[in-house]
Amino acid sequence: MIANIIAKRIAIIGVGLIGGSLARALKSVHAVTTVVGYGRDENNLKKAVQLGVIDKYSLNIVDVVTDADIVVLATPLSTADKLFAEMSNALKKTVIVTDVGSAKGSIVKSARENLGDLFKRFVPGHPIAGKEESGVEASCAELFDAHRVILTPVAETDPEALNLITEMWKLTGAEVLNLDVENHDTILAATSHLPHMLAYALVDCLSRMQESDSIFEFAAGGFADFTRIASSHPRMWHDICFSNREQLLNVMNQFDQHLNKIRAAIKDNDSDALLELFERAKTSRDNFTDQRKNRNDSPE
Amino acid sequence: MIANIIAKRIAIIGVGLIGGSLARALKSVHAVTTVVGYGRDENNLKKAVQLGVIDKYSLNIVDVVTDADIVVLATPLSTADKLFAEMSNALKKTVIVTDVGSAKGSIVKSARENLGDLFKRFVPGHPIAGKEESGVEASCAELFDAHRVILTPVAETDPEALNLITEMWKLTGAEVLNLDVENHDTILAATSHLPHMLAYALVDCLSRMQESDSIFEFAAGGFADFTRIASSHPRMWHDICFSNREQLLNVMNQFDQHLNKIRAAIKDNDSDALLELFERAKTSRDNFTDQRKNRNDSPE
Repeated sequence: MIANIIAKRIAIIGVGLIGGSLARALKSVHAVTTVVGYGRDENNLKKAVQLGVIDKYSLNIVDVVTDADIVVLATPLSTADKLFAEMSNALKKTVIVTDVGSAKGSIVKSARENLGDLFKRFVPGHPIAGKEESGVEASCAELFDAHRVILTPVAETDPEALNLITEMWKLTGAEVLNLDVENHDTILAATSHLPHMLAYALVDCLSRMQESDSIFEFAAGGFADFTRIASSHPRMWHDICFSNREQLLNVMNQFDQHLNKIRAAIKDNDSDALLELFERAKTSRDNFTDQRKNRNDSPE
Repeated sequence: MIANIIAKRIAIIGVGLIGGSLARALKSVHAVTTVVGYGRDENNLKKAVQLGVIDKYSLNIVDVVTDADIVVLATPLSTADKLFAEMSNALKKTVIVTDVGSAKGSIVKSARENLGDLFKRFVPGHPIAGKEESGVEASCAELFDAHRVILTPVAETDPEALNLITEMWKLTGAEVLNLDVENHDTILAATSHLPHMLAYALVDCLSRMQESDSIFEFAAGGFADFTRIASSHPRMWHDICFSNREQLLNVMNQFDQHLNKIRAAIKDNDSDALLELFERAKTSRDNFTDQRKNRNDSPE
């Protein structure tokens, strides 16, 4: 398949797992002519060139974004203010800027404050894809295939920019959906950010127990599945926590109440309450599995 | 391979996922001559016969265990007192009794109280294997292959009985290890029982949120992995909670402290503390992955 060229020059700000995989995916369908990378670690950028992920790079963000048709911010969320501010004056008027952050409220605020008139050309995005490993070596062209990408346009967002970023993600094989910013952040706090906190807390807890050696020695596949996300990138997750602070604290409190219900039922020998809660949870989880199966089966 | 016959007649008390898979595995290597099933649900037992999992069944436990060389208790833990008491007088003197329960302290107590002189012929066991589905339809001969089985013999346990049950599990492809009862229950509380509580609490929490429809709609693969265990058998897990009550409450309290550390760091904007905790957890999780990989690579 020969895809339409969607950008002559695309700038990838942060060439890691996500930025690298997007570059690979777009190159694999010839949707971009030149991919230019920006980062702070020159060795990483050199590796990205060697791997064919990007065509060239610079450590100067102004050089990288000048003349870029699309700029993709793919760095940890806490860097957004600084990077938007640094690139702002070098962007051309027709540029489209997007990002891949896991929380949208903070980055929209940052773009609004730093991009000036070009804020309307900013399309907030979040590909729901990833893996245990991070870094450009882990990147692959298929990462987004059959995964979802959520875009969270705001009132000012230029429809033309939104359309192009939608097209860009579709070329990676992703299904693209729109949500409003607040909805996105509530949903992701519940389904992704909270589970990461639980996995980090569990692994930290177990590694601190007196019996930690035999605990990890005897842990089996279920435990491996459950804690896989605790191997995620610490800096990225640190930034997500502070970027989605209120929503995350809110769901953590709600989770506490439910865990306390279980604890109370065990403590009080309340057999009926415990069984009812497990049965209710199993029903919800089984429904989720069925929905997911139907979704994957249907030609979307 | 023609295995030695380890039992002419084996009684499977509770023909579900685990009991059924053990029967299938032993039949597949011709290690048993006759498998007799016991259960309360005749339709399930009929299905087990149709599927070739067992050779015959009775709804009368005395009929099933009489003349059995090996009796495997594979029902939820809360049924142990009743079933041990019912079978006790019908067991032959040379019988070996074992079980597959996920908590060992309570079942050892129950066997001690109900099996009389034959307590020395009881070998407490716990295969670390399972899947999302339960019931005899989900059983398969390969369930234990390359998995671990932990046996927790006590001072009184007859070494000959321990040897035979060790052999039995090896025939299923499992690696057999011994732990003492208390160690087992501490380790399993941490690596299995606690994660199940977290998964049940998370799914219950999310299903009760106002946005629950879109939450489950947008949940992705990581969430699916994380909550898979919330689809486990509610009655079985209810029983495990009460059977391993003290140890479970203890690790739940420890977990709380670690989750609260994360919450406090987010609330107090304590960037260093949060990053340090995530980095520490990632290191532990990565070490666990490496150990697991080495274990699976080594010819055990």
